[in-house]
Amino acid sequence: MLLTGMDAPTTNQPMPEKYNKRLFTPGPLNTSVEVREAMSIDMGSRDPAFIKIIQQTREQLLRLAGLTTSEADYTAIPMQGSGTFAIEAALGSLVPRESTLLVLINGAYGHRILDIARRLNIQVDYLQFDETQAVCPQTVRDYLSEHPEVADVALVHCETSTGILNPLQEISHVVTQAKRRFLVDAMSSFGGLNIDVTTCPIDTLIASSNKCLQGAPGLGFVITRVEHLRMSKGRCHSLSLDLYEQWRGLERNGQFRFTPPTHVVLALHQAIEQLVAEGGVETRNQRYENNQQLLMSGMNQLGFQAVLDTALQSPIISTFHMPSDPHFEFERFYDLLSERGCIIYPGKLSHTDCFRIGTIGDLNDNDITTLLQSIRECLSLMQVEF
Amino acid sequence: MLLTGMDAPTTNQPMPEKYNKRLFTPGPLNTSVEVREAMSIDMGSRDPAFIKIIQQTREQLLRLAGLTTSEADYTAIPMQGSGTFAIEAALGSLVPRESTLLVLINGAYGHRILDIARRLNIQVDYLQFDETQAVCPQTVRDYLSEHPEVADVALVHCETSTGILNPLQEISHVVTQAKRRFLVDAMSSFGGLNIDVTTCPIDTLIASSNKCLQGAPGLGFVITRVEHLRMSKGRCHSLSLDLYEQWRGLERNGQFRFTPPTHVVLALHQAIEQLVAEGGVETRNQRYENNQQLLMSGMNQLGFQAVLDTALQSPIISTFHMPSDPHFEFERFYDLLSERGCIIYPGKLSHTDCFRIGTIGDLNDNDITTLLQSIRECLSLMQVEF
Repeated sequence: MLLTGMDAPTTNQPMPEKYNKRLFTPGPLNTSVEVREAMSIDMGSRDPAFIKIIQQTREQLLRLAGLTTSEADYTAIPMQGSGTFAIEAALGSLVPRESTLLVLINGAYGHRILDIARRLNIQVDYLQFDETQAVCPQTVRDYLSEHPEVADVALVHCETSTGILNPLQEISHVVTQAKRRFLVDAMSSFGGLNIDVTTCPIDTLIASSNKCLQGAPGLGFVITRVEHLRMSKGRCHSLSLDLYEQWRGLERNGQFRFTPPTHVVLALHQAIEQLVAEGGVETRNQRYENNQQLLMSGMNQLGFQAVLDTALQSPIISTFHMPSDPHFEFERFYDLLSERGCIIYPGKLSHTDCFRIGTIGDLNDNDITTLLQSIRECLSLMQVEF
Repeated sequence: MLLTGMDAPTTNQPMPEKYNKRLFTPGPLNTSVEVREAMSIDMGSRDPAFIKIIQQTREQLLRLAGLTTSEADYTAIPMQGSGTFAIEAALGSLVPRESTLLVLINGAYGHRILDIARRLNIQVDYLQFDETQAVCPQTVRDYLSEHPEVADVALVHCETSTGILNPLQEISHVVTQAKRRFLVDAMSSFGGLNIDVTTCPIDTLIASSNKCLQGAPGLGFVITRVEHLRMSKGRCHSLSLDLYEQWRGLERNGQFRFTPPTHVVLALHQAIEQLVAEGGVETRNQRYENNQQLLMSGMNQLGFQAVLDTALQSPIISTFHMPSDPHFEFERFYDLLSERGCIIYPGKLSHTDCFRIGTIGDLNDNDITTLLQSIRECLSLMQVEF
């Protein structure tokens, strides 16, 4: 039926140039035109058309984790808010208070899991590794054999504080062989690195809409075992973040309990379709790998030194030491790059003066080449020798 | 600087007709073309340009509450998630656990405040009024005089479960004269009904981006006294929803602690600019009042009966009894209206069979007229007598 009085979306004006920037960050990232266009629709949050979008998105998320939707073992539960909200929802709902959670830490996001667990009065212990070293599976194995009180183990797959990639497969086997539950913060890796829950056993995986899935920020999700969910009724410290109730609501009528960010959900739905169209996680991973390798080789040529060993480096984000040249001033470097339409990211390491450059989102080799040219220009302007 | 390789937003294709629907709901609502266009920009969440948007939005929210930004007494704190998340953040952070919270209830959203308080182990009591009656200031006054243990009082300004408008000004004076703190859920009224905190004393006001402000869903906010915030350090049960820490983070570097929904923030920023351009809250209120009066008069002509007395009716949403004609079937009515591009809302009353029609969002008298014509058509098709 044709609607006459309604203000249908009109043609977009091109945005002012200053806004069209490339985001070399760990997220929010550059999204595609199609993803942004998906946000130009207002939908009723309880309307059957929107309920169908939610259902399809939940199924697509399961498929991306290697699960078929006919397997009733796992379910995907979206949660409003940033990724941290989804992590808090998972910890608060799924981790029993009478046993201990072991957090494996080699960066800021491991520390955040620890902080959340402490706030929630979860009994928690942790193994801390150097920020530039991967979590060691053997150390985890030894710890678990000596600590029967540990029932759950939490790991950050890719620590964006450095860009380090932890050995997910090995740790997954250590944890599941020791018959503990395995919770993975795959915030910055899901969609960009292959994670198949059927061959890499994970009980709970948490990620968000705006990282490698290339949607808009505002929605996290938890992929977890229905069996563990069932046991979590009444456990959560929070009403809003209660994963069990969120799941029950979705199963009951397909709706979020509380207003979902409808535009962000539509963006995620479109983004996953485009991930599939790109060739799935493997093809996307290859694009990110290419981006990162091109970046690293160019940065090395410009005299920048990576903080991580190559073997530990993820294709997500790379950390570089600040140049020792006294003419280099990070804030000026950031501003000059920003004027050239490139947004980079400050460092997040405790003991190293560094900055970061992300290589995910709707970026390809042309974008990396442009960034490297801009960096060269900025260094010249700053009279930094390279 | 001209960016060449970047996929600048291209011209939007008109959306498929089926999506261009009018939302006669309590939210998410119809937004303007400009608000949706504001979401077509990807911004870095820690970039100075975005930090400026956050700062301006916080200042604009204070202004809308009648506060000048030079008054350091109050601050506006955005919180990721739905409005319920912001309410939980406010209750969890601002309500002391050693005193009692009194919740004034005459609908589903009052009950939700009670549910949240109970989940958070807040000592709570409540006064329950009939769903079709306003909260009575005299009853509140009497209760407070007899219950010195009550330190905080919570009220839902407009209960969208019916559309009833509670006497905010009177209750505000009762509560503040009794020297208790007053917390108001103004989710569905802020921006559409005038609330001036300087003449109608409120300690904490909670609302969200996607109601009368006509932004997109995904962000709530809390306007509260800095003095009460300062006392709330370390109190919150949740890391994500910790209002004190959210405020500290924003004050420290202008950034959200955890990834904000950047596109939704941009939408809200644009939406508030349009609210001001429309002539402010007063003009918007007049448009909503016109919408509601036109709706009510048309619905009465079609034989529908309002659940509320006219004197209690807000311009936000109206509740109607289901027609007694056995040919009337709500699901079919909903579907037929939806086919005609109009989304209405089911009822939410405990004891009355009813449905609801919202009159807020980017809707005007033309939209109401179209809805009424469509309803007439649907009733004819269903062979309902009117």
